[in-house]
Amino acid sequence: MVTIKINDKLLSKNDQLALANHALFDRHGVWCLNLISAPGSGKTTLIERTVERLSDRLKIGALVGDLDTENDSRRIASHGVPVRQIITGGACHLNAKTIGEFLSHFDLEALDVMVIENVGNLVCPTSYYLGEHHRVSLISAPEGDDKPLKYPGAMHTSDALVINKIDLIPYTDFSLERARENALKIGSHLDIMPLSCKTGEGLEAWIEWFESHAREIKSRRESGTSE
Amino acid sequence: MVTIKINDKLLSKNDQLALANHALFDRHGVWCLNLISAPGSGKTTLIERTVERLSDRLKIGALVGDLDTENDSRRIASHGVPVRQIITGGACHLNAKTIGEFLSHFDLEALDVMVIENVGNLVCPTSYYLGEHHRVSLISAPEGDDKPLKYPGAMHTSDALVINKIDLIPYTDFSLERARENALKIGSHLDIMPLSCKTGEGLEAWIEWFESHAREIKSRRESGTSE
Repeated sequence: MVTIKINDKLLSKNDQLALANHALFDRHGVWCLNLISAPGSGKTTLIERTVERLSDRLKIGALVGDLDTENDSRRIASHGVPVRQIITGGACHLNAKTIGEFLSHFDLEALDVMVIENVGNLVCPTSYYLGEHHRVSLISAPEGDDKPLKYPGAMHTSDALVINKIDLIPYTDFSLERARENALKIGSHLDIMPLSCKTGEGLEAWIEWFESHAREIKSRRESGTSE
Repeated sequence: MVTIKINDKLLSKNDQLALANHALFDRHGVWCLNLISAPGSGKTTLIERTVERLSDRLKIGALVGDLDTENDSRRIASHGVPVRQIITGGACHLNAKTIGEFLSHFDLEALDVMVIENVGNLVCPTSYYLGEHHRVSLISAPEGDDKPLKYPGAMHTSDALVINKIDLIPYTDFSLERARENALKIGSHLDIMPLSCKTGEGLEAWIEWFESHAREIKSRRESGTSE
């Protein structure tokens, strides 16, 4: 395991607070995922489908960012998930300070996973580390297969790319192959998972990816190597 | 006609430069439209369909903002439109200063319309006036009918809402009625135009809206009431 020592003075205030969040997650063995996408790509629905499939094996909590409305947190809470809605007013992204404040509302010891659903915006959230272990960008087929090229920040800083709404591909010009090529041009490291939250196609690969990362953080805590 | 005197000292630097752009447009009788949407809602395609239908009656130019790639400007230029691509690097919106700089590349006297395609982002661009006469937000059916509620800034500051990709409605949970209701809750002033750039359905209403506004600015200049 490589340990990198970081000089706090070189870090932004946001990054300092994000590292504090990260340490808190590690201390409790909670895997944190930061989910980023444009408006309407299906972040909330993906969380719902994930919880439905994993709630008997993993205890999942959620923090949901939106400019306005509590619609998304209500949808997620209906699955029995502890959830808090962060209404940002006009702010176009979540930041580490807000996440830290809202984490105090959760019993982290009782959780295995914290999913952060960021504000619907494929630009600004990519510049703010929140303390997550993994970051996933989500695009949806109707948005077009050129999106990975046009939003390079999201591809660079994410660990995985979920391509949602593949059930709509027959009615659009979207090519899964072109989307994949475009994504790998910018982020050759990306795990790419095409799926449909509607039909369930491709969901198994996502669930495996999700669960294996959550278990890794949990087992790190149990073996005492998390910090 | 109501004249509002504005104290320059109360304006942000961006707003001052935007007013200068606005005056420049008025001086040349050029109607300026600022087009805002999430990534992949169809801004570029809407511009292409508009130019195809109006290029024999209006001389249209375009300024296209993107984080990266020149794809959109190439698509628009293929229709014979004078166009400049503004690559913002990481910036999540266009600003009035950049618009002013790029306008110097155009012969405004030879144009009737300048369409600004903003960066794909339904949040940040809403806070930056660029000097446009009208602002249009665009959502697409696959994004969901709750989007107007979740992005109130876009609804508040726009004059019209285009709902694109209505050809995909049969394959989604999107309700045009709910979307309309949600939009009018936030922006009761909005002109709402559902359409499909793919099938052409609804495009005529948009073309009429577009052309009538362009002609209004032109006739104002001709009658000497533009400033």
